[in-house]
Amino acid sequence: MSETEAGIAGLKAASLGEEIVARINELGKISETPEHLARIFLTEQHRAAADLLLGWMRAGGMRAHLDAIGNVCGRYEGERSGMPCLMLGSHYDTVRDAGKWDGPLGLITAISCVADLNRRGRRLPFAVEVTGFADEEGIRFASTLLGSRAVAGSFNESVLNAKDRAGISMRAALLQFGLDPEHIGAAARVRSELLAYVELHIEQGPVLEAEHLPVGVVTAISGATRLAVALAGMAGHAGTVPMALRRDALAGAAECIVAIEQFCRTDQGLVGTVGTINAMPGATNVIPGRAFFTIDMRAASDAHRKMAVADVVRQIERIAKRRELALQIDVTHENRTVPCALWLKRQVADAIADEGFRVFELPSGAGHDGMAMIDIADVAMVFVRCRGGISHHPDEHVEPDDVDAAARVLLRLIENFRARDASVAAPSSPFPLAGEANGGAS
Amino acid sequence: MSETEAGIAGLKAASLGEEIVARINELGKISETPEHLARIFLTEQHRAAADLLLGWMRAGGMRAHLDAIGNVCGRYEGERSGMPCLMLGSHYDTVRDAGKWDGPLGLITAISCVADLNRRGRRLPFAVEVTGFADEEGIRFASTLLGSRAVAGSFNESVLNAKDRAGISMRAALLQFGLDPEHIGAAARVRSELLAYVELHIEQGPVLEAEHLPVGVVTAISGATRLAVALAGMAGHAGTVPMALRRDALAGAAECIVAIEQFCRTDQGLVGTVGTINAMPGATNVIPGRAFFTIDMRAASDAHRKMAVADVVRQIERIAKRRELALQIDVTHENRTVPCALWLKRQVADAIADEGFRVFELPSGAGHDGMAMIDIADVAMVFVRCRGGISHHPDEHVEPDDVDAAARVLLRLIENFRARDASVAAPSSPFPLAGEANGGAS
Repeated sequence: MSETEAGIAGLKAASLGEEIVARINELGKISETPEHLARIFLTEQHRAAADLLLGWMRAGGMRAHLDAIGNVCGRYEGERSGMPCLMLGSHYDTVRDAGKWDGPLGLITAISCVADLNRRGRRLPFAVEVTGFADEEGIRFASTLLGSRAVAGSFNESVLNAKDRAGISMRAALLQFGLDPEHIGAAARVRSELLAYVELHIEQGPVLEAEHLPVGVVTAISGATRLAVALAGMAGHAGTVPMALRRDALAGAAECIVAIEQFCRTDQGLVGTVGTINAMPGATNVIPGRAFFTIDMRAASDAHRKMAVADVVRQIERIAKRRELALQIDVTHENRTVPCALWLKRQVADAIADEGFRVFELPSGAGHDGMAMIDIADVAMVFVRCRGGISHHPDEHVEPDDVDAAARVLLRLIENFRARDASVAAPSSPFPLAGEANGGAS
Repeated sequence: MSETEAGIAGLKAASLGEEIVARINELGKISETPEHLARIFLTEQHRAAADLLLGWMRAGGMRAHLDAIGNVCGRYEGERSGMPCLMLGSHYDTVRDAGKWDGPLGLITAISCVADLNRRGRRLPFAVEVTGFADEEGIRFASTLLGSRAVAGSFNESVLNAKDRAGISMRAALLQFGLDPEHIGAAARVRSELLAYVELHIEQGPVLEAEHLPVGVVTAISGATRLAVALAGMAGHAGTVPMALRRDALAGAAECIVAIEQFCRTDQGLVGTVGTINAMPGATNVIPGRAFFTIDMRAASDAHRKMAVADVVRQIERIAKRRELALQIDVTHENRTVPCALWLKRQVADAIADEGFRVFELPSGAGHDGMAMIDIADVAMVFVRCRGGISHHPDEHVEPDDVDAAARVLLRLIENFRARDASVAAPSSPFPLAGEANGGAS
């Protein structure tokens, strides 16, 4: 690239960043209540947000529609119509009292990147699709990744019977929204339609900030194991039972929590969290006879996580035995690790390096739509620095300069993208260029 | 004592024990609901229990009345009427889902001991009074020792405005019960009327059981300090924040709990309990940003307890500082230690030894009416073994043989009792014997 080209690209990217921030602010206004951002699946706000996003997609040169589960789907044809696509995406639902960046940053950046291609009349030897997933957080029906699971063809129909807090089933909510619960299968895509799935997302953690980097390459979406631990000893009067005769379930739980933290601290790439605890009967002057706590453990490989979970369980068993506490440990949740594809990570790394940033790899400890999309495509993710690692909170923030950097990286990634199987859609493709985009698979 | 006398005493005491157990069972039937024993201040059950107890007192040769706060007060005159009394007593209210022994054992044993004196026409060189306190547990108005505080003249009138869960004030409840809230002062006794206050009570702990002893001499009612501890760190996503960058408030609390237990274990006579804990926001996949817990610390001397509390606070401060957690510690409750009087403890020990048991001293970690009575009399307590140390629970249990042993000890204590100031009412008292009991101070 000549200096002039770099200057033009910089100018373009700057305006792209401004557009993205403005759109994030605009989408962020669509909320159940103005004070606390909440945009929940199959509500008025879902509808309003979808309309806004579909409008931006169409303005950016995409054909766009709402799919069978309420995802927004935009398609920008390649050099000829009907080519397999590079799919970009993220989700546009939120948690309650959310920040405005988690999900929308990746989705809106993708839309704006495609719009930039379209403004320049740039067609690529593959289609680009942008999918905005309608429900990743799972707030309403306590079931996550609904949008991406529908696209990946792994939507579990039993979830249609799940009810929200008002007692409305997902089936009824879909009908009310104007969607047909019997036809969610129509949202499913197949592997041959996708060259890859790439998602840009805020980090939701403090690592990039600590590294002084605007973006990073995700190595894997960490798998997670969640355990529920119950300890039972003997309740007693806080004044009358000497320390040596106690079987205090909470003291046992505390020793376990300290051990879990200690173990995870000494093991790079592993995180373990005790997020909830309860002591029974729960009175100041009563020795707790029972204690309950949960453990959430994640690592960037399944083998690493499973070994760590087994080690933590052994430590808890030892503590319970020594303290004469009855122990029950249940696995309440288990998610496999989704590794990002090496060939895609390399292209992300190249785009980052070409934008002048140090290439830094980190795992994603949080779950993302890629966990579903892995069923039909190789997956990569680009992480964007967020302030203080804060997410799922109104203080969630991304600096405009970082939005700009992220958009430049994504645009470069798209423009330089080469499919894994170069015979399908590589720049050196033998297929003739299409004149106009007039059809497609979306 | 000759062998014949001992045989007769043994026979009498055995029948005393049976009577006490039968009465405990009978009183235990007076409950809000038949399944879960609850006898609460100023209720129908309070009334029914008082009537039953007053009847037993009168049948045992006592004049008896309900005092201004609902205590039952029985008086058995000494060799002449109007002599100062040895006051025996305990409470007859219960916690919810209580055992039937906590309180009633001491009260009913005292009534049966006096009845035994009366059957034998035995008058002593002092009066014996038995007081059944109407509210020690403080269940209804969240304020303990109401009955004994009224007797000790330390009743806090502001408690009259306290309301129960139904919104009824203590003032209204007293009126409804037929008592005058303006005249609670009439329940107060003065120091010159009492030679001592002696209470027999179940241990509510496992120490006597571990020592294979039916009874023990209480050294002191341990003072207690209660602390509320709040730790604040930074909430975060359980998957995205590396261990080294966390400020996990619950992990900090867990380290404090382990440290408190460790410290109290190495310090004889000290107990420390963390009975309640809460982690916020309290989700499996969120690092707790805040944690709250309570500490209850007790020792048999105020100096010991205060030094221990200061040491524990220093340890918590060190942990919070190292973990960069904001810390707030509040003292929510502080009770002074009530030492049992040496001269009284000696008489209790003599009675125990004379009954053939090893004399064993232990502190009372639980609070008792003696904490109020210390204001107007020297205090002693006799503890009775209970099964498994269990109390405040339907499984609370005392073996009939232990009831019998306790009754024999109390009866011997009463019959051999010598006032501290031997000139007042010692067996060698120069005062002439009274013919009939015909007056008194109660």
